Amino acid sequence: MIESDIIPNTFAELLREIRKKRPLIHHITNTVSINDCANITLSIGAAPVMAEASEEVEEMVAMADALVLNIGTLSRPQVESMLDAGRKSNALGIPVILDPVGAGATRMRTDSAKLLLDRLKISVLKGNAGEISVLAGEKGKVRGVDSHGVSGDTISIAKEFARKAGVIVAMTGATDIVSDGTHVLLIDNGHEMMGRLSGTGCMAASLTGAFVAVSSDYLISTAAALAAFGIAGERGAAITHGPYSFRTALMDEISALCPDDLIQRSRVRSV
Amino acid sequence: MIESDIIPNTFAELLREIRKKRPLIHHITNTVSINDCANITLSIGAAPVMAEASEEVEEMVAMADALVLNIGTLSRPQVESMLDAGRKSNALGIPVILDPVGAGATRMRTDSAKLLLDRLKISVLKGNAGEISVLAGEKGKVRGVDSHGVSGDTISIAKEFARKAGVIVAMTGATDIVSDGTHVLLIDNGHEMMGRLSGTGCMAASLTGAFVAVSSDYLISTAAALAAFGIAGERGAAITHGPYSFRTALMDEISALCPDDLIQRSRVRSV
Amino acid sequence: MIESDIIPNTFAELLREIRKKRPLIHHITNTVSINDCANITLSIGAAPVMAEASEEVEEMVAMADALVLNIGTLSRPQVESMLDAGRKSNALGIPVILDPVGAGATRMRTDSAKLLLDRLKISVLKGNAGEISVLAGEKGKVRGVDSHGVSGDTISIAKEFARKAGVIVAMTGATDIVSDGTHVLLIDNGHEMMGRLSGTGCMAASLTGAFVAVSSDYLISTAAALAAFGIAGERGAAITHGPYSFRTALMDEISALCPDDLIQRSRVRSV
Repeated sequence: MIESDIIPNTFAELLREIRKKRPLIHHITNTVSINDCANITLSIGAAPVMAEASEEVEEMVAMADALVLNIGTLSRPQVESMLDAGRKSNALGIPVILDPVGAGATRMRTDSAKLLLDRLKISVLKGNAGEISVLAGEKGKVRGVDSHGVSGDTISIAKEFARKAGVIVAMTGATDIVSDGTHVLLIDNGHEMMGRLSGTGCMAASLTGAFVAVSSDYLISTAAALAAFGIAGERGAAITHGPYSFRTALMDEISALCPDDLIQRSRVRSV
Repeated sequence: MIESDIIPNTFAELLREIRKKRPLIHHITNTVSINDCANITLSIGAAPVMAEASEEVEEMVAMADALVLNIGTLSRPQVESMLDAGRKSNALGIPVILDPVGAGATRMRTDSAKLLLDRLKISVLKGNAGEISVLAGEKGKVRGVDSHGVSGDTISIAKEFARKAGVIVAMTGATDIVSDGTHVLLIDNGHEMMGRLSGTGCMAASLTGAFVAVSSDYLISTAAALAAFGIAGERGAAITHGPYSFRTALMDEISALCPDDLIQRSRVRSV
Repeated sequence: MIESDIIPNTFAELLREIRKKRPLIHHITNTVSINDCANITLSIGAAPVMAEASEEVEEMVAMADALVLNIGTLSRPQVESMLDAGRKSNALGIPVILDPVGAGATRMRTDSAKLLLDRLKISVLKGNAGEISVLAGEKGKVRGVDSHGVSGDTISIAKEFARKAGVIVAMTGATDIVSDGTHVLLIDNGHEMMGRLSGTGCMAASLTGAFVAVSSDYLISTAAALAAFGIAGERGAAITHGPYSFRTALMDEISALCPDDLIQRSRVRSV
């Protein structure tokens, strides 16, 4: 079990590193939230790049510090580019984050997410309970892309699948669950407004990219990303009137986040 | 002629239904306003999903409560996916909304809109006067995708084309015209700021999807969507300084809209 | 050397022309900032259209007053459409703006930008120092798509490449450099917040499209676009808390910009 008292200090250190190193985060992502992802990456202090043409993905990812793959509006050629970029990342030791948006909703999404997990060394698999459960072979009913319906013990699903698949599992929800198969961290930061805005799941994956880019401890850095996002969400929600004033506040708060905020406000438990 | 006094009460009932049932609205749409469409769908209380790969559109739409087709940045493969998703919707009795963005501007847009109208049972055709006039075979001059230039009597064009094509026609403008070929409803809600923001037409189609998803009376539910959008626009415009603060306010107001607002503020006439 | 005292009066005149003529700006652009580009085009008073299907680009561009090509998320078919639209523009005398996003980052981007410069008559090439330097054959190191690392004298690189390539070069940065190969204008407007928001470079290209659409003097009209954008950025930054409240303010300020603001606030030097 991890000593959870010192974790927020590590989170703060990682944020400092992002701002110092300005890691380049290569995205192959959906057309719905691609702008949100670019902006949240910039806001936390990293640099985004979006590129998916088969002719350039390997060259682009070779310059990157992390690769984020998101199947929210997937196509067959896009999945091929994800495989190309992912293989190159694996060869170079660049961490790969997979966001299996809508896994369980259609066979194509489920199969593509499984293919990416099978053929690539994924560092972090970030999804909601429904998506992760489907990939873990647990009975879950996913409706559209934002369902939270899931059966079974979510913590044990996350932990077992992390162990079995050899990835960090980040299962987002009211409480986020992050596990490497041995340890489990729970993050209680966040606000229900985040569920009323499109693309927050995708933004969380981008932030995860920024944090894992500056640390070899992907368990802690993934938890740091989710805590940072949750804290910004809490602050943003306090000053907003609806989903779009919340979006503005959320992005401003990500940009304003200080290492000290992570020390003071992270609510992380090791279980 | 419809008793217009009681219409706002029906509008209010439909909004309650959306918030209760949270219908899933499948979009095949353009890359310009895809994020706006996802967010407005969420804001009114429905759930958006965007998917257009030929391998998954039929499976995705089978879970949906309405399908929105928008040709704003069309391609040949995308039109094929629209046909596949549309045929599946028709087979399952799921309503289909068509937004023929830029019909009249290029042959491809005009022909694609006509093809979709011809091959699919479209429930609601929502466009501006220029677009509808071109599809109705009336002389209209469309410039780019946001023209309002049109000749002839717009009400009779809308009504006649609704009757001939067997669809609900929603012709948006300063006064929105909704007709099933027999009845005509005019909606006077709205604000000129809505024309100074990109994507408001597309957002109106998404809202139409949410409203028709919870009612088999597509005439009334389409009118409800346009009234709801117009009321949110009026309120938003009252507190904004330009197009982007208006966008923020518009989306917040959609989210804050109560059934009672529709009763109090809808300006609908039956002619 | 141009008499720089009277330039701001010309800028003001161009803004009046945009608002009067409402030029149509055809974009073939990336999926990240496509919505921002549509909205900034509307905000300045022009009309945007986004279309890239090979079947319609020539027909669409024939109605346009300027064409903006941006390779931010390029693909081979998209570059083909750029060539088709560009050739049609050249034949019709419609100005073409090229934004070579990420030139230098991958071979595909560098080669595509060079191909477009080679095959088309480009009116304005707008990029950052890194991108322009790579295209000019100068040693520059571009990382991702927003690098500013460049060697050599940026003014002479811009001027020499403008002369050699027969284009207006607009090299954006803290001070923007605009040259036709003979004259050089420096624009000192702008704010560092513009670099903390994704897509500002693309927005600058859209504004350039709007200004060159109403003038045959592309040197002055390009400088006017960058001054207008910079002034809006300065004003927006004064009232914002972070990148997204800045985005809102920036777009509102573009919309609120008066000809008189350009006279009063443009900081342009002829060197």
